[in-house]
Amino acid sequence: MKIITTIPEMKAVIRGHRSQGRTIGLVPTMGFLHEGHMSLVRAARKKTDVTVVSIFVNPTQFGPEEDFKAYPRDINRDSAMLEKEGVDFVFYPEAGDMYPKGYKTYVEVHDLEDKLCGRSRPGHFRGVCTVVLKLFQIVEPDFAFFGEKDAQQAIILGKMVRDLNLGVQVVALPIVREPEGLAMSSRNTYLSPEERRAALVLAKSLKEAKRLIDHGERRTDVILGKMRAMIGQEPLARIDYVEAVDTEELEPVKELGEGTLIALAVYIGKTRLIDNMIVHLER
Amino acid sequence: MKIITTIPEMKAVIRGHRSQGRTIGLVPTMGFLHEGHMSLVRAARKKTDVTVVSIFVNPTQFGPEEDFKAYPRDINRDSAMLEKEGVDFVFYPEAGDMYPKGYKTYVEVHDLEDKLCGRSRPGHFRGVCTVVLKLFQIVEPDFAFFGEKDAQQAIILGKMVRDLNLGVQVVALPIVREPEGLAMSSRNTYLSPEERRAALVLAKSLKEAKRLIDHGERRTDVILGKMRAMIGQEPLARIDYVEAVDTEELEPVKELGEGTLIALAVYIGKTRLIDNMIVHLER
Repeated sequence: MKIITTIPEMKAVIRGHRSQGRTIGLVPTMGFLHEGHMSLVRAARKKTDVTVVSIFVNPTQFGPEEDFKAYPRDINRDSAMLEKEGVDFVFYPEAGDMYPKGYKTYVEVHDLEDKLCGRSRPGHFRGVCTVVLKLFQIVEPDFAFFGEKDAQQAIILGKMVRDLNLGVQVVALPIVREPEGLAMSSRNTYLSPEERRAALVLAKSLKEAKRLIDHGERRTDVILGKMRAMIGQEPLARIDYVEAVDTEELEPVKELGEGTLIALAVYIGKTRLIDNMIVHLER
Repeated sequence: MKIITTIPEMKAVIRGHRSQGRTIGLVPTMGFLHEGHMSLVRAARKKTDVTVVSIFVNPTQFGPEEDFKAYPRDINRDSAMLEKEGVDFVFYPEAGDMYPKGYKTYVEVHDLEDKLCGRSRPGHFRGVCTVVLKLFQIVEPDFAFFGEKDAQQAIILGKMVRDLNLGVQVVALPIVREPEGLAMSSRNTYLSPEERRAALVLAKSLKEAKRLIDHGERRTDVILGKMRAMIGQEPLARIDYVEAVDTEELEPVKELGEGTLIALAVYIGKTRLIDNMIVHLER
C-alpha cells in the first residue's frame, strides 16, 4: 500500500493503471475509519482492480460554527487498518493543494441540497459535491463507494453524477451499526458514556417506526409523531429533524410507500448525529 | 465525418479512441460557424489525433430576456464547413438529453462570474461552466479550444479547469476579424447594414486605445474615457461597459500593465456585441 499526498502523483499513478485497462474503485472518506468505512473498502476491493481510499477532512463542507478543527484524525491508525485490507493507495492530500489560494469553483445540486441536513448545514452539500467532483477527476474511478448512513449525500452525489455525465458509478452500501444499534460514525467519539447511551434513541426510534410499518401503519404523521415522542423522552436529545421523504426530490410524503426514506438528525448534547432507514414494504 | 446526436454514442466512440491512445481535441460551439470558429477547428486538427466539434445552443447560458430562440442555427451549413476541414465528429445533442426533466446540477466560478459581462448577464457563466463541464465529461478531451473574443469565458473556464483538477488543457486563440475590423460573431447576423457600420466603433475604440498606449499612456481612466467618448459619438451605440482589468481576478486596474485586458460590451440597436484586447507593452 502506498500513501500518496500530491495531486500530480495521484493522477500519474491512475493514468498508469488505466492505460493497463484496470478498473479503479474509490472510497472517499474523512478518515478516523470505522467498520462502516471498512465495509466500503471491502466492496471496492471485491468489485475493482485497484482500490484507492481518500482521506481528507474537507474544509468546504463544514460551516463556520461546525467541528472542522475538532474532527478526529489519526492517519497512522487509518493507514494500518487499510493496509490490512489490501488497499492499493491512500490518497491523503493537503487542504492547501485541494483548495489553493484564490480557489473559486463550486458544484451545487439545487433543491436537494437545501432539504433535511441541508437546512441546518447551509453550504454543506456544496462542499461535499465540490470535493467529490475533484476526487473523481483526480482518481478517475469506475466505481465510488458511499455509506447509506449519509443517505442525502448518496442521493445528491448520484444526481450530480447523472446530471454532469460523469463516467463513474455511485455504489451506496448499508449502514453498519454497533451491537447496541448505534449507527457507526467518526463523530461517535465525541460522546460521553452517558451520551452514548442516550444516542441509542435514534436507532430505537427507527425500530419503532419499523414495528408500526410492519403492523400496517402507512400514515407518516403517525409514525413520525411516535418517533418524535420517543426521542422527546430522552433528556439529552434535541431533535433537528425527523422526516419521511421520497428519494428523488426529498419531498415529505404523507403516506409511506416502497423506498420511502425515513431520516432523522438529533443533537445528543453538542454532537449532531444522523440515522435513517429505507422503507421496504412486505407484500 | 460523423454527426453524433446521443450522449451514450459519443461516450462510446471516445472510449474507443482513447483506448487506442489517441489524443482528443474538442471545439465547443453554439453553431452558425464563422472564421473565428474555423481557426479553432484548424488548431484542434493540428494539435490532436481526433477532433470533435460540439454544436449546442445551450439554453442555461441565456437569460429569460435574451436571444435563445432567435439565436441563428444552420446545422447543414455548419456540417458542410466542418467536413471540409477534416473534422472527425460533430457532437450535436438535444437540449432534452443534455438537461433532462429534473436537472439540478450547476457549476459556478465565484467572483469572476459577476464581473464584466456577468453583471448584465446574471447566470450566464454558470450556464457556460455547466455545459462545458458536461461536454468535458462526455468527450474527455486532452485539449479544448476557445476564442479570445469571449475573454472572460476563457479566463473563467481556465480557472474552472484548474480548480476542479480537470484533465484537459484550455487553449485560447486570437480574435478573428472582418476586413473592416468587426470581431466575428454569430450575432453579427442580427445587424442591419446601418448597424453593421455603427458596430465598427467597438474595434475602432480599441484601436484608439492601442494608439494611446503606443504613445506611452498608461492611465486607464484616460484611455477608457477616450474609448467611451468615441463610442458616445455613435448614435446607434449604447455602452454596457468599457473596462480595463487584470486577467486573474478581473478587477479594474488604474494603471495599464503587461497583460491587462481592455474589454467592452456595446449595444448596437438591440444587439449586444463584445470585443477586447490584451495589452502588450513594448520594451
